[in-house]
Amino acid sequence: MQDIDVLTEHRVTKIDAKAKKIEVANLSTSETKWFPYDKLILATGARSRRLNLSGSHASNIFTLKDLQDGIRIRNYVDEKRPKRVSVLGGGFIGLEMCEAFRRRGLETYLFCRRDLPAGNLEREISERILKELEENGVQFLAFQEPVAFNLNGKNEVSSIETRKGNFPTDMVLMAVGVIPNVELAIETGIEIGKTGAIKTDFTQRTNVADIFTAGDCCEVFNLVSQDWVHTPLGDIANKQGRVAGENAAGGRATFHGVVGSAAFQVFELEVAFTGLGIEVAKRYGFDVDSQVIEAESKVGYMPGSKRILIKLIFDRRSGRLLGAQMVGKEGVARRINSLAVAIHQKMVLDEIARLDFAYAPPFSAPLDPILIAAEQAVKKIKG
Amino acid sequence: MQDIDVLTEHRVTKIDAKAKKIEVANLSTSETKWFPYDKLILATGARSRRLNLSGSHASNIFTLKDLQDGIRIRNYVDEKRPKRVSVLGGGFIGLEMCEAFRRRGLETYLFCRRDLPAGNLEREISERILKELEENGVQFLAFQEPVAFNLNGKNEVSSIETRKGNFPTDMVLMAVGVIPNVELAIETGIEIGKTGAIKTDFTQRTNVADIFTAGDCCEVFNLVSQDWVHTPLGDIANKQGRVAGENAAGGRATFHGVVGSAAFQVFELEVAFTGLGIEVAKRYGFDVDSQVIEAESKVGYMPGSKRILIKLIFDRRSGRLLGAQMVGKEGVARRINSLAVAIHQKMVLDEIARLDFAYAPPFSAPLDPILIAAEQAVKKIKG
Repeated sequence: MQDIDVLTEHRVTKIDAKAKKIEVANLSTSETKWFPYDKLILATGARSRRLNLSGSHASNIFTLKDLQDGIRIRNYVDEKRPKRVSVLGGGFIGLEMCEAFRRRGLETYLFCRRDLPAGNLEREISERILKELEENGVQFLAFQEPVAFNLNGKNEVSSIETRKGNFPTDMVLMAVGVIPNVELAIETGIEIGKTGAIKTDFTQRTNVADIFTAGDCCEVFNLVSQDWVHTPLGDIANKQGRVAGENAAGGRATFHGVVGSAAFQVFELEVAFTGLGIEVAKRYGFDVDSQVIEAESKVGYMPGSKRILIKLIFDRRSGRLLGAQMVGKEGVARRINSLAVAIHQKMVLDEIARLDFAYAPPFSAPLDPILIAAEQAVKKIKG
Repeated sequence: MQDIDVLTEHRVTKIDAKAKKIEVANLSTSETKWFPYDKLILATGARSRRLNLSGSHASNIFTLKDLQDGIRIRNYVDEKRPKRVSVLGGGFIGLEMCEAFRRRGLETYLFCRRDLPAGNLEREISERILKELEENGVQFLAFQEPVAFNLNGKNEVSSIETRKGNFPTDMVLMAVGVIPNVELAIETGIEIGKTGAIKTDFTQRTNVADIFTAGDCCEVFNLVSQDWVHTPLGDIANKQGRVAGENAAGGRATFHGVVGSAAFQVFELEVAFTGLGIEVAKRYGFDVDSQVIEAESKVGYMPGSKRILIKLIFDRRSGRLLGAQMVGKEGVARRINSLAVAIHQKMVLDEIARLDFAYAPPFSAPLDPILIAAEQAVKKIKG
């Protein structure tokens, strides 16, 4: 096996795809140097999006993408003892950080463009999340988009300005999404998809010979919508990386795509989803309907059983399951995966309702909530 | 809707399938009466098997099939304060009862025909169960089959005789399997399968016109072995009952079968399995191989993460997953269901390794242990 050089504190500043070499800057010495390559993998990732408002570059505005960001936030809380923190954005990073800040005892304000947090999820799920936030003392501010940050004399935000008012704060977390790092790719003539991320195929190749890509900087194929999307998640990056690596080394691996599964926890609530939501499914031309049920996570008499809510999204014409979303305080996140497999396999609800799941009272009722939800959806289609 | 008569304390003593009527005995008055029927559903269930040995009908030998059995056992423990209990049989009822007896503070002895408990499972799984039993103070007696029960003067077992010795005991639980209740069916000329349970088809019909069957008294189709088996489990009975009922009422429902999923808990250990084990898979002509991995149930740095063991059983020729077994103290039982779906869909390992599962650190590593196991199995096949 050949030695591997790992160059930390180095940045690739140019790619010469014709000559097959890269220009690399040593960030300590500022020297640059050209390196030849046979195969190149672009894994430039993504960066936190920042709102471009007056005051946006104040020293107490944070984003959270990597470990260093996390350490910076923790140090600030430890040293400056802020009392009030404002979180911008109701996505899963914003929600997880609301929990972290509450645990540190901060007054926590969540600013959201819409009426509910986790706006990409179905309303029934978002409503549960809102309830959980409120029960844990997070102040949720609906339809509140910052228009400016007011600074004190020390380049620190002292209040957030929205169209509705002025909110004093000691610290701000911007959690308003990520932007794929594609600047180097664009300069190299690598094609960018309509999502703004690098275009790739099932072998993780770009349109430029011998240049592969993987991770948050590139697109991934969604098997349900049959479209290329940008879904910057760690598990997808991991799988793409393996395929890109294997192919760059002369292999013939493929990554056929995702169905769009994810999970997160906010306080005691587990949230998990897979496949498409109603709005997206409609956009792709499906004849969309849905079914919501509530059930116990275990047999009701078992200690620790909790109510869970399941929403199935399906195509009325074919009976195919298109998506599933689940929320509850127990037995949610790992339960979704069986439906991720069902969606991957394009299963219809009738088949799903008859699946053979492992039953034991500490883990589920004789008919798992998923099977009950599928059965109810079948009845809804049959009318 | 027509009224439903529920006749408790009544027993059907004869079926006249030609005249389409049943003889019913009122167990309180001992009167018998004939009732006509249009459609009949035989749901006679199963009963606990009893070892037919000298002393087998002692008053302190118990079986556990229904709630009444459970109450009898609890009352005996409450009133007679036995110190030592002997459990016969290392299946899941025997194992669950070992836990219950230990919680009540009894010295607990588990007698087993084989070297390990849960003998239907793979060795790696059974070894973990044995360790868990021992850590919780259960005395495991391998290769110990009772040959007689020695009674005291009060029709109570005072010791169990095996070929290897004599074991004093205050109480015995026989957990050595169940026998389908098919006597009435046999008398009626209803066909019995090679398993000893009632033969049925995908519509839950027997061979006799207008007589349906469901539950522990009848067989079920195994989709992996493509054979009719006897798998007396609550969730299967539940599904068969719905199909039998719908069809008896003039519907056209089918129950296509099971893959053989089940789970149980013994002390802190979760055990779950689906599909075929190695021995059974070989018997059905598959080119059987297997792969065992150990992994963390969550991302390792999360509190509460535990080691879990996964064994995949697969067909080398086709790459198809045939079975999966899992054991661990967290995140096992609900994890198996995604593989139950994969087996149901006849998925090959290569596809399984690329499935899109919901990832978040409180619930799994970026690559779920299942995906890692599938990846390892693929490598094993490729050599």
